This record gives sequence, C-alpha cells and structure tokens, in this order.
Amino acid sequence: MRLGVITSGGDAPGMNAAIRAVVRCAIPSGLEVVGIERGYSGLISNQISPLDLRSVGKILHLGGTFLRSARCPEFKTIEGVQRGADVLRENQIDGLIVIGGDGSFKGAVKLGKHIDIPIIGIPATIDNDVAGTDTTIGFDTAVNTALNAIDKIRDTALSHERVFVVEVMGRDRGFLALEVGLTAGAGIILVPEIECSLKKIIEIIKGYEEKGKATTIIVAAEGIGNTSSVVKYIEKHTSFDVRLSKLGYIQRGGSPTARSRLLANLFGAKAVEIFLEGAKNKMIGLQDNNLVAVDLDYACNTWKPLNTNLYELAEKLAV
Amino acid sequence: MRLGVITSGGDAPGMNAAIRAVVRCAIPSGLEVVGIERGYSGLISNQISPLDLRSVGKILHLGGTFLRSARCPEFKTIEGVQRGADVLRENQIDGLIVIGGDGSFKGAVKLGKHIDIPIIGIPATIDNDVAGTDTTIGFDTAVNTALNAIDKIRDTALSHERVFVVEVMGRDRGFLALEVGLTAGAGIILVPEIECSLKKIIEIIKGYEEKGKATTIIVAAEGIGNTSSVVKYIEKHTSFDVRLSKLGYIQRGGSPTARSRLLANLFGAKAVEIFLEGAKNKMIGLQDNNLVAVDLDYACNTWKPLNTNLYELAEKLAV
Amino acid sequence: MRLGVITSGGDAPGMNAAIRAVVRCAIPSGLEVVGIERGYSGLISNQISPLDLRSVGKILHLGGTFLRSARCPEFKTIEGVQRGADVLRENQIDGLIVIGGDGSFKGAVKLGKHIDIPIIGIPATIDNDVAGTDTTIGFDTAVNTALNAIDKIRDTALSHERVFVVEVMGRDRGFLALEVGLTAGAGIILVPEIECSLKKIIEIIKGYEEKGKATTIIVAAEGIGNTSSVVKYIEKHTSFDVRLSKLGYIQRGGSPTARSRLLANLFGAKAVEIFLEGAKNKMIGLQDNNLVAVDLDYACNTWKPLNTNLYELAEKLAV
Amino acid sequence: MRLGVITSGGDAPGMNAAIRAVVRCAIPSGLEVVGIERGYSGLISNQISPLDLRSVGKILHLGGTFLRSARCPEFKTIEGVQRGADVLRENQIDGLIVIGGDGSFKGAVKLGKHIDIPIIGIPATIDNDVAGTDTTIGFDTAVNTALNAIDKIRDTALSHERVFVVEVMGRDRGFLALEVGLTAGAGIILVPEIECSLKKIIEIIKGYEEKGKATTIIVAAEGIGNTSSVVKYIEKHTSFDVRLSKLGYIQRGGSPTARSRLLANLFGAKAVEIFLEGAKNKMIGLQDNNLVAVDLDYACNTWKPLNTNLYELAEKLAV
Repeated sequence: MRLGVITSGGDAPGMNAAIRAVVRCAIPSGLEVVGIERGYSGLISNQISPLDLRSVGKILHLGGTFLRSARCPEFKTIEGVQRGADVLRENQIDGLIVIGGDGSFKGAVKLGKHIDIPIIGIPATIDNDVAGTDTTIGFDTAVNTALNAIDKIRDTALSHERVFVVEVMGRDRGFLALEVGLTAGAGIILVPEIECSLKKIIEIIKGYEEKGKATTIIVAAEGIGNTSSVVKYIEKHTSFDVRLSKLGYIQRGGSPTARSRLLANLFGAKAVEIFLEGAKNKMIGLQDNNLVAVDLDYACNTWKPLNTNLYELAEKLAV
Repeated sequence: MRLGVITSGGDAPGMNAAIRAVVRCAIPSGLEVVGIERGYSGLISNQISPLDLRSVGKILHLGGTFLRSARCPEFKTIEGVQRGADVLRENQIDGLIVIGGDGSFKGAVKLGKHIDIPIIGIPATIDNDVAGTDTTIGFDTAVNTALNAIDKIRDTALSHERVFVVEVMGRDRGFLALEVGLTAGAGIILVPEIECSLKKIIEIIKGYEEKGKATTIIVAAEGIGNTSSVVKYIEKHTSFDVRLSKLGYIQRGGSPTARSRLLANLFGAKAVEIFLEGAKNKMIGLQDNNLVAVDLDYACNTWKPLNTNLYELAEKLAV
Repeated sequence: MRLGVITSGGDAPGMNAAIRAVVRCAIPSGLEVVGIERGYSGLISNQISPLDLRSVGKILHLGGTFLRSARCPEFKTIEGVQRGADVLRENQIDGLIVIGGDGSFKGAVKLGKHIDIPIIGIPATIDNDVAGTDTTIGFDTAVNTALNAIDKIRDTALSHERVFVVEVMGRDRGFLALEVGLTAGAGIILVPEIECSLKKIIEIIKGYEEKGKATTIIVAAEGIGNTSSVVKYIEKHTSFDVRLSKLGYIQRGGSPTARSRLLANLFGAKAVEIFLEGAKNKMIGLQDNNLVAVDLDYACNTWKPLNTNLYELAEKLAV
Repeated sequence: MRLGVITSGGDAPGMNAAIRAVVRCAIPSGLEVVGIERGYSGLISNQISPLDLRSVGKILHLGGTFLRSARCPEFKTIEGVQRGADVLRENQIDGLIVIGGDGSFKGAVKLGKHIDIPIIGIPATIDNDVAGTDTTIGFDTAVNTALNAIDKIRDTALSHERVFVVEVMGRDRGFLALEVGLTAGAGIILVPEIECSLKKIIEIIKGYEEKGKATTIIVAAEGIGNTSSVVKYIEKHTSFDVRLSKLGYIQRGGSPTARSRLLANLFGAKAVEIFLEGAKNKMIGLQDNNLVAVDLDYACNTWKPLNTNLYELAEKLAV
C-alpha cells in the first residue's frame, strides 16, 4: 500500500511536523509513503518522490513546508482534477493525506470524485476557519506571533499615547483577531462576524479617555476590509494620533509552538490510523479535546461559528 | 461583598492575567476586591490592600505575580491557619480566590475549616499536576520556554554529535517533560510515572547509532531523580560524549503565551461567576475544553494520571 | 545643580536604560535630576517631576520611554522655544540631557539660543541617521527585530517559492535596510542612497532563477518610496508571485538588546560626566568604539554617509 | 588554488555564516573551497568534501556549524598534527581557514609548523577570550540569550523576593558575565578577574535590603568556581531565600544575532582577502571597529584584559 502526502494552500507552522508524523506512523505499519511537492500543481506535473523515516528528520521545529506549496489554477478545471487523479493512479497511490485548509479540502473532495481511493484531510491553517475542528495546526503559532508583535507595538503606543490599529490575518474570518485581541488586552476588537460601527468605536475610545486611558490598541481582522479608513475616521473624530500596523506575513511563518507541534503529531498519527482502518474522505479534527474524524465534505462546506463568549469576555476585561 | 484574591506557591506565567480577570469581572458585578500580598505569609501578617480596575492595568503580559508569593511555614500549623482566618474576618472578606497549585489549595482547604466563606481555586502552576483540570495556567508557557531552549541546545548537539540530557521542571511529575519531549522530538523521554531502565536507554541510543543518528536528545523530568548519574551511565556504556543541561528557573518566568493568558481570562471570569452563584470550595478547571467547577478537596488530593498515549506516540515518532 | 532629562521624537528601545544611567550617575555626583514628560510638548506645559534612584528601577529592560514622548508643533515656533526656555528657568534647571534623534537635537540647538545652560544630546533612534556617532541606541534592537521577522517570512517565501519585498523603517535613510539586508541574506537591498533600477532588479532575480534559486527576499528601506510599485513591476516582468510585507511599528518597540542597553549605559554615564566637566551643547557618540563628544550642531546638521562596503559585501554574498 | 575551511572547538552562533562568507568570497576570486568536517578529528581522518556556492545556502541564520566540530585528543600529539599536515598535502590544500577559539588556533599554530601553507584564523567563540580582537563571532548572541533568560528569571525573583545567582558560561574568563551582568542590571557581578569576597557580597545584599530592594540578581561567571557555595553562604548570612540557575548550553546555540552574523560576514570576507594577498598565520580581528589581521600566535598566547570600566559602571548603576 502506498500513501501520498501533500501540503496545499497557504503554509502554516506545523505542516512539517504533520508530514513527519504521517511518515513515521505509516512506515512502521507497513505502508510506503510518497511526498507530492508543490501542492496540486506538483500533483498534476507528477512531482512525486518517496519519503523514508530519515527524510523527515530535523524538520519538526521548522515553519513552512519542505514539500512546498503552490497555487494551481488548473486544478479549478475538471481536466486539471482528472489529470491529478491520473497521476495518482500512475504512481499507484492507494491513499492521500491532504494537509491544508478548506480550499485544499475542496480540491480534495473534487479529486475524490475522479479516483476511488481514501483521502484524509489534516487541517493546517493559521486562519482556523475549518469546520469540524476546534482548532487547526498553525493557529496557536500565529496567535502567539501576533501577540508578541503587539507586545512590541504597545511600547510605542504607551510612549506616545496613541491609538494603534493592528491588522491581523484571518482572511474573511475573525478567529485570529479575536484570540489575539483578547490575550493582548486590546481595547477594541474588530471582526467581520460582529458589527461594531465607527460611531461605537469613537464612543469606546472617548470612554477610555475619560477614565484616563490615553492608549488604545485596536485589533482588527483583515476581513473587516479597509482598516485605513478606520484610522482616518478615528483621527477625525478624536484628538488622538492614530497609527496602523498590518502585521502581515510574519504571522504565517516561524517555528511552530508546542501546541501546533502537538496537534500536528496527533493529527498525523490519527490520519494514518483511520486510513489503516479503511476510512474514506474524512478530516481529522479536535472537538472538545477529543480526536475525531468528520466528513471532508462537511469540513470544507460548513460555516464555523465564532465563539462570541470570548468577544464578550474581551469587552468586559478591557476597561 | 468583598472578595479577596491571593497568589500562592511557585509563580506561574499568567497569574497576573488571572488577577486582572478576577478584578475586572468582580467590580462591575458590584463586588469590592482586595489583594492579599505574599501568599499565606502576607495573609497572616495582614498585607492587604484594595484593587480597582486600573490597578490591574499593564500586567496582562507580565510573568510572575505582582501580588507576589512567599513560603509560609506558619501556615502549616493550626495556629497559623486560624490567624489567617482571623485576618480574613478582620478585613470583612466574604470570599477568597486562591491562584496557585495543589499546595496552595491544600492550604485553602484547611483555611476553609476555620472560616465559613466561599473559597474558589484557580489552578496556576507550570507543573500541571492538579487533578480536575486538563491543564493549568502557566503550563503552556513553560512548555514553550523549554522547547525554545531545546531548539538552541539542538544546534550544539548536532554540531558535536553528542547525547544531551535536558532536565526540565515538574517536581515529582512528568507532565512538562512529556509534552516538551514529544514536541521537541526527543529521542528518549524520562518521567517518574513510566519505568525506563538505564539498560533500555543504552539500547535505544545504540539503536539510533546503528541507523546513523549520531545525536540524541533525552528530555528528563526532574522527578526522576539523579540525572547526573544517567549522564555518567551513558558515557560509560556508549562511545558518545554526553552533556547535562538543567533548564531551571527560566521555565517559571517570562511573558505568558496566548494560551496561558486565555486560560487565565477564562478561569478568572468563571471563578467570579460561580462565586456570585454561591459556589463554595470549588476549583475552576478545563475538562475536554469545557469550563467546570470541581471540589477543591478533590483537586488537591487526587493523583492526576499522565496521558500515556502521548508517551507511546513520542516513542513511535522518534526514530 | 539640577539636571533635566527629556526623551523626544520617536521612541527607541534603550531610552529607558539611558534615563536610568543618567539618573544613577548624576545623583551620586551630587546632582538633582528631574524628568520632563512628553518631550518638548511636556516641557512647554511644565510637566516636570523629580527622579530619584528608585524611580528608574525595573525599567532597564523595557522598550519605549516611561517619560513618554510626543509631537510638538508649537516648538517649531520661536514663541514655543522661548516658552520652553522659560520653563527650564522657572524650574531652576542647570543642564538638560536630550535623548532622541536629529529632530530632537535640532530642537535642542534652538532651545540653547534662548537659555544659557549646557545641553547634552544622547542619540537614540532606530534609524541610526545621526552624524557624529557610528551607531545609536535602539538601532541594534530594530535590526534584530526585523531580522527575526524576516526569518519567519523566509519560511513562507521558501514554501511558496515567491519573491518577497520586505519594507523596513529608516525614514529617508538606508542604515536599517542595509544592515538587515546583509544579515538576513537578502537577495537584493534597496536603499535611497544607492541607485538600483527596476530593470536591474529584474536582471538579478532572473539571474537567480537561472541558477535554480526560486526564492528571493528583497529588503527595501521605506525611504525608497513606493514599494508597492516595485512589487507590481516584478510581477509584470517575471513569472514569480511577489508579496509585500511592511514590518512597520514592531521595529520601534520591544525589549532592548544587550547592545542597545550597553550603549544606553555608556552614553548616559558619559553625558553626566561631560556635563560635570562643563561641556556645553555636545552630543555623545561612539566613533570606532570610543566614546566621544561632538558638537550638537554638527550632529544634527551633517549628512552621515552609508557604509557602501557593506552594500558591496551583501551583493557578493547573495548568489 | 584550493582553500580548506574548518570549524573547531565549541560551536558558536555565526560559524555557519562565516563558512558561507568564506565560500562566497573565495569562489568568485577563482579559488576552490573544500570543507573539513568534525574539526581536527575529521582532518586527521580525511573527512573532506568540496563546497560550492549553493552548498552554503540556507545556513546563514542557523546556530551551530554544519561542518560539525569534535574533540580531538590525537591532535595533541606530534603524530596527530603531522597526520593533519599530511592530509592537507594529500588533498592539495593551499590554505586553511580555521574558525574557532584560542584552542583551535593553538592547534593551527602547531599545524603550521608541519606544513608551509597560509593559515588564517577567524575568532568564533561565545567566550570572547581571544586576544587581538575586541569581540568574537557568537559572543553577542550568547550575551542576548543569557539576557533573555535573566529577564524570565527576574519574574520569579521579583515575585518571591529572592536572591538569584545566575551562572553564565565563559570558561575561565568573565567577558560574558560582565556584559550580561551590566545589561541585565545585575546587583552583583562575579568574574574570575576581579576579587569580590563573600563578605563583600553579603554587605552589598544587606545594603540593598536596607534601601528596600528585596530582590538581587547576581550574575556569576562559571570561572569563579563553586557557585553553589556562594548560594549557601548567602543563605546562611542573610534572611533571603537564594536560588541558583546555571544557564548552561542554551548559551551556545540559537540563531545568531545580527551582530554575530555581521561579524561573520566581515571576518569571512577579510580572511579570504588577506589569503589572496599572501598573508600567513594571521587571525582576523576587530579593533576599535576596524578589521585587522594579527599574528595567530599572538592571538592564542596572549591574555586579553577585561574592560574594568564596564565593571565599575555596573557597580554604579546597580543601587
């Protein structure tokens, strides 16, 4: 039996750890493992090579993915997907582990319609926007990276008594912004899922000012759209200097935290386990601290709710 | 109603965040809050002062505890405990939040026998050795600190092709060693809960050597006892240079990670919530990702099992 | 004798360490020290309070400035400067230590024309654009912060085989970009002082591509202007995906590195020393590893050359 | 012309950057470069392989040395040194770059007596105990690593109002302890070069106590000998709890700081430059910020003085 492993979509810290876990759990169980390079793009162009126990040494602690990832417009066509299925057949691959986010899983679901082999998803994205799992590989690392960045920005914010809008990643969702905002002690958190009018922002800042708090850090999800206009609005309606800091790509890289590595280990091991048990088209997830397998289809086609309790707690704690 | 808050025992990153959460949830609910300084020692000597919303500003991201902590031999006597209860009465304190580990909770249970006010525990220790909760405030920070330290030590281990024994904290338990060992990719993990003979250690190292792996990192809990003798034994029975590194007190401090801060926020808020609901002598915990309240007595008098699945996974992944 | 100390302009890591050094060297020499808050703005509005040995405790390792800083448009008028001089007289201040960059020193020079007390400058800016000194307090910290950020970005750049343009601070100068670019192993460094045409950038990237290097990190000083247009040009003229990351305000904060703290200690001590010796209107500097005092006027009105040898070395090492 | 490059002795962060600089400056100048693995041990056993421009890619930011290092007792015998010289001849090596500390340079000097090829030393050691250069590759990284560790330990020291003795590396010298102690704001610094009696330590601690300072951090060089006995003495003669933390091997590894990388680049480039100019048996150094070449013999046989001004400054600033 030959198992393929692929990383796809945006990289996330812990992807390497997940590949390592897959390889080191699969081989002792009698499986062969091959690595598909550069995501679906590399699948289509047959960039496949064998992985052994040693080839995943010294990568556990590295960010990114040594299998690399790439965009693949061809994979959005039926021909592209068919070509991917053909390559899997040519390489006699009996199962596929897809490490990535919901876009990658949508690709996997389409692929599964052209080839009858089990496909197992492992959720790895800093956005944590995958249904069926409480958290994803890389999310904890990105939260901590953003947090450390804000700990630096706070020095300047306090020294200059300014308002800072810090834009964090998360695509169209607010998971990252919410957890970063709560743990950074942000005065205001802006996420796409929860309405907060510009007028309300001004009220909150002025409320802080009256209580003697001259510095406010606003953590904003990139998904809320134009953060520059938020900055301008605050400058216009308060007496504060306001600065914008987009944390950007630092949130995607870096050595994975213990939690991202732990998840990667657990998810990788579980993926191999359920593959050996005959599971098909599932995604590994963590639900209330238990490892589960949910339908891949469900995982990538369901809207995952934001924990609004955390948002309310953040509002309560920021005074 | 006046609520007292105290930090006791060894400090843990996130204690400040927990104090902040208690204060900022209690005051808007109409409670007064007072801080008791220097643990039970400060309680006995009446080191108590009021806390307001601002007095817990700018501490969320700081390690240690601004209320400080201290050893208190007097509190091991009945007289000491009675004195503590008297001071609580003199200060008209109607409830007490104890932030600490199992030793602190044992003290709290004794105190509860001399004064009839609700006492709520918040588990905060880097050792994670408190029953009734899957994890404790500070544990995630200590794991990451140890992990980053080992990422540095690995550079020297690889450059010199040595065996390193890295001793981590955890008192008589192996929670920290296990999670650090698994996520650091340790070749061997030594914890008090699981027997691993010196002979087996040698076998494993020689097995690695045969497979061409010249460097082995052994993560050992301080609870296994004499790590120096492990070093000497390996030096005697293999051809490797072996070095010992005791990570020591760096594991106790530092800015709390996002996860330690998040737990502190959740635990602090929940502690105030159940106090207002009339709970008595409970400890807040996280069980399968749900906030729970368990008996304080149970929490500090029950042996918490180690997750042996993680140990087996670590063995599988280290090759 | 009463010595005033003020931080002005953009904050830089190590300013607190410099204030501490000034206070702790001045007081044992028999001087009184007062802190002027919020830069020249606080001077004009008489925000002045005494500093003792203890009031600068526990700040050595903190970024920002606990005296705070602020913009001060009034100080650009003669009336504003006169008002500042008057406040100094009213407070019987016999000497002033100004911690900041060239803008702050220009203000100090103007101030010196309205009051006959010695003014000593201590260069503290992450931009390192002050003449008369090889380096400034905060520069080493900012270089390392940018470097660590790029070490994270590299993970994504390598995983996706992309070109990244990383914009670093430095206002209109390239000191930060040059040192960051060289030590990060950037493929191209763009600084205002050295011409590098868009055409040449394309040639270099294509040269790398031919040698099999799929990832290029370009470190660009903000002073080169529109980095977005560089990104677009490269995307148009090569086959690479290109991403822009503006590191922004994280470069201004954070705990100062050892070198920034050391400079702060040395500069602070030297400033007090030359004040006691009767120096007037000087700036402390480091030239070829020796502490020197240069004319304040010279320091803020001289163009400091970039070390082009480092640029050439970076070109040589990037292949 | 064929140039050999070797790393020897204890690893230091930046060694990889130095190898890269040597290779990338040598090859464009028409030299061939070979890497000698595992220090003098690998030289004697002919572990030599060619290095090209690509083989030193992606290592600039990594601690340790990819050429590895090893102890070599044989090289302490004349036969061993002769064997080394023979291997160099057999491999037609026309010059040797030795990256390491004084022990490595002593070996190099002996080697130079058995083969008439130019040998150039590049000082790389976290101990900074090499004469002829103000600083060494890796020193700045180790200082910052120790500093960050102490920033964590301070949390616990302040929370528990304890005295901490923090032992740092440096072999028999105090360079590391002095720079760490000064920049960490240590209350006392203990180095082998400067006498500080146990009695004086007690006086200082009691002096602090009288001024209301309950926490003292003592930075001690490992070279002062038994730090445990210092701890015991303080516990016996004061009322403080005292704890010992030996920072150990974390100081040897980790990603090099900007300054360590910069030095590595400059030293590597200069080494190739003077080799091409015909220099023999020199060591590259930095003196008052200028790159110099000193006699290798001088570098490893001269006692380098400690900067006692820094010690006095540290005493002044600690109050």
